[in-house]
Amino acid sequence: MAQKPSIPKGTRDFGQVEMARRNYIFDTIKGVFSLYGFQQIETPAMENIGTLMGKYGEEGDKLLFRIQNSGEKAALAPEKGLRYDLTVPFARYVVQHREELSFPFKRFQIQPVWRADRPQKGRYREFYQCDVDVIGSDSLIGELELIQIVEEVYRRLGINVCLHINNRKILAGIAEVIGAPDKIVDITVAIDKLDKIGVEAVNDELRERGLNEEQVEALQPILKQESGIRNQDKLASLKEFLASSETGLKGIAEMEEIFRLVESTKTASLKEESRFSIELDLCLARGLNYYTGAIFEVKALDAQIGSITGGGRYDNLTGIFGLPGVSGVGISFGADRIYDVLTELDLFPKALQSTTQVLFATFGQEELRYALTWAKELRAQGIAVEVYPEPTKMKKQMGYADSKQIPFVAIVGGDEMAQHKVMLKNMSTGEQQLMELGELVKALKS
Amino acid sequence: MAQKPSIPKGTRDFGQVEMARRNYIFDTIKGVFSLYGFQQIETPAMENIGTLMGKYGEEGDKLLFRIQNSGEKAALAPEKGLRYDLTVPFARYVVQHREELSFPFKRFQIQPVWRADRPQKGRYREFYQCDVDVIGSDSLIGELELIQIVEEVYRRLGINVCLHINNRKILAGIAEVIGAPDKIVDITVAIDKLDKIGVEAVNDELRERGLNEEQVEALQPILKQESGIRNQDKLASLKEFLASSETGLKGIAEMEEIFRLVESTKTASLKEESRFSIELDLCLARGLNYYTGAIFEVKALDAQIGSITGGGRYDNLTGIFGLPGVSGVGISFGADRIYDVLTELDLFPKALQSTTQVLFATFGQEELRYALTWAKELRAQGIAVEVYPEPTKMKKQMGYADSKQIPFVAIVGGDEMAQHKVMLKNMSTGEQQLMELGELVKALKS
Repeated sequence: MAQKPSIPKGTRDFGQVEMARRNYIFDTIKGVFSLYGFQQIETPAMENIGTLMGKYGEEGDKLLFRIQNSGEKAALAPEKGLRYDLTVPFARYVVQHREELSFPFKRFQIQPVWRADRPQKGRYREFYQCDVDVIGSDSLIGELELIQIVEEVYRRLGINVCLHINNRKILAGIAEVIGAPDKIVDITVAIDKLDKIGVEAVNDELRERGLNEEQVEALQPILKQESGIRNQDKLASLKEFLASSETGLKGIAEMEEIFRLVESTKTASLKEESRFSIELDLCLARGLNYYTGAIFEVKALDAQIGSITGGGRYDNLTGIFGLPGVSGVGISFGADRIYDVLTELDLFPKALQSTTQVLFATFGQEELRYALTWAKELRAQGIAVEVYPEPTKMKKQMGYADSKQIPFVAIVGGDEMAQHKVMLKNMSTGEQQLMELGELVKALKS
Repeated sequence: MAQKPSIPKGTRDFGQVEMARRNYIFDTIKGVFSLYGFQQIETPAMENIGTLMGKYGEEGDKLLFRIQNSGEKAALAPEKGLRYDLTVPFARYVVQHREELSFPFKRFQIQPVWRADRPQKGRYREFYQCDVDVIGSDSLIGELELIQIVEEVYRRLGINVCLHINNRKILAGIAEVIGAPDKIVDITVAIDKLDKIGVEAVNDELRERGLNEEQVEALQPILKQESGIRNQDKLASLKEFLASSETGLKGIAEMEEIFRLVESTKTASLKEESRFSIELDLCLARGLNYYTGAIFEVKALDAQIGSITGGGRYDNLTGIFGLPGVSGVGISFGADRIYDVLTELDLFPKALQSTTQVLFATFGQEELRYALTWAKELRAQGIAVEVYPEPTKMKKQMGYADSKQIPFVAIVGGDEMAQHKVMLKNMSTGEQQLMELGELVKALKS
């Protein structure tokens, strides 16, 4: 035989079990999005190269996949590239279709993206993103709804999470207060490493990045804030620290309002049932290039896997396409990592494995025909049925049911046919029972 | 403002209305596939170029989109290409994963494909295919189930269809009987034009393609077969015509068995209710390069749009990847054309337009908070709710509900709040009614 065919490195085939699980994740998320009035859009896999270039930094430009018509000469510069994320196409979409849209525009989008990254464990060249955004309003109800969505999605999936929240205005305020307003990125990049490298190493990095001793000293109250204390207490002490910074205080006010909104809409049942917490986390510094207000990151409590959802408030996403001053807020669910968490914690529903509820196994052509009429009746009742297409050895037919994890096999031999019945076998208990059509429908529907 | 951004020609953005409609089509089809135990797989957008090249003829090779890492020099031949259809990746998948699969393997796949075709009305460079196949069995129950699936999908969508069916063995038999066994493709290509150009022009084309007068004459009973006659009668006269061809008679036997299977599994209710017919159509000649048995094509009766579903039996799909002799049968639903038919015949359900059932409109910050707690309760009941994020002018909030076709608006002013009620406005009748939370839930759920 010829060499086994393969697929490009960093890409994946998804078999039926993986697809059932992935669909479970996406359907759960979509179900929650819909409750909040977010509606789905899709954009093309390929964008004009000008839409993509320069939007992801120098590194990003190098990781774009470019597309060439087969007819085109290789020397010709490709004019198209594959979607690198869902954010830039979304911004392009909003600007291009702004006259047809009603604002605030609430959209979600679940599509693959492609990056010419070096493939490694957990990093793929093709992977799905799952983004939800509301754009065209600076109301903090946007933040509230995204937090509620996170809570509800993970409650439905059964994953206990902590939502870390920060605010770019607070970070800017801190930089301002210590007299280094231009060093906000340096400061937050260093602070971001606090968990990993500790306070002393962060201080060293701050010095390397050009902060003087006085400034480093001024930052210590922030760095040494205990992680266990309540958000309200953190905000209270930050408020004092940031008293001289208008921006900083605005950030505090935003956070206070967000916490207030979350508190006031918590239903009693949810308070008890779910393990969902929110933590004000000054070390959170993702996306500082474009986030202007709240910044979110969600971590699973019972799995060591990093962020499974992240996002924030932006004020100028569409500015790159000539439509400035449109505020929005959005988050992205990491489907691959959620998949890994659900697998690690064994949280996928068992019933996902097979959609087929019963397989008809037969001993001869006549029985096979007989089974086909029953199958048609069952399907009309909404029951998923397969008929093994040949009256072959029973062992083979049973093996097929086993491998597809089909829970019941309806065996049809001459005796059963004569009685207008089938022998229903429960594949997990081994029990068998002779049944008429009506009984079979009842048994399979329960 | 900068120039409005755009997307590559031949590609499309799908807005929320289009997405809702497309999802309706795909969900309907998927629901039927599941009833028959077909399970979903996905393959990567990019395949190794060797997997794709030479599989679609010379024309096809030219229409492949090739992919280049941004880092790679343009002069380097690209090693990857975008998926051109779902059939070749499916064959690759079956061969690559054959040890993990249980046969007969029943899969469906719904993903976009890309072709560097010249874009024109109804022809896109990116479009979805929706394929369903069973591979690893030559049982005609495969054909039966695909026919049943076609019937059920179009019954659910409300489209009246005729399924045209032919058989390559019959076509081969005809070529054999008239003494031109090597001319099967020429003959069928010519016959295929019968509807468009008429018998005489077809005869001319047959002559051009190398048939002698005797052979053309021998074909006339086939060409002049009336289109109104019953399948059984067609098969009976064909049986005489093909009496000397073993292959031809095998084709007849297959068709007889398929018709018998369809007849014997027709339920009484379906017979009356649906307008679904099957027609043996010798002019159907699609996919002769690879189909070896039955060939299918489905046409909508009430729209002039060509084939909306097509497929057939193949015996050597996986041979191209080194696994010969595996028989399968499959069909492909044309989502774009189905979309067009549903639009033309106004068959999309009205409720698809909006998922949001109620918008809360408020007059002040306090009312807004109040609305948020109600929204949370309603969502916990599974009701899709939006809260307009700012207590702005009522006209603007109503306009938003209008543009998103949200059927109800719950108005919250000071009076309503004082009474622990909201004023529910029915947006189509204009009726208003003051309601408590429990009444609101009841009203929205009914």
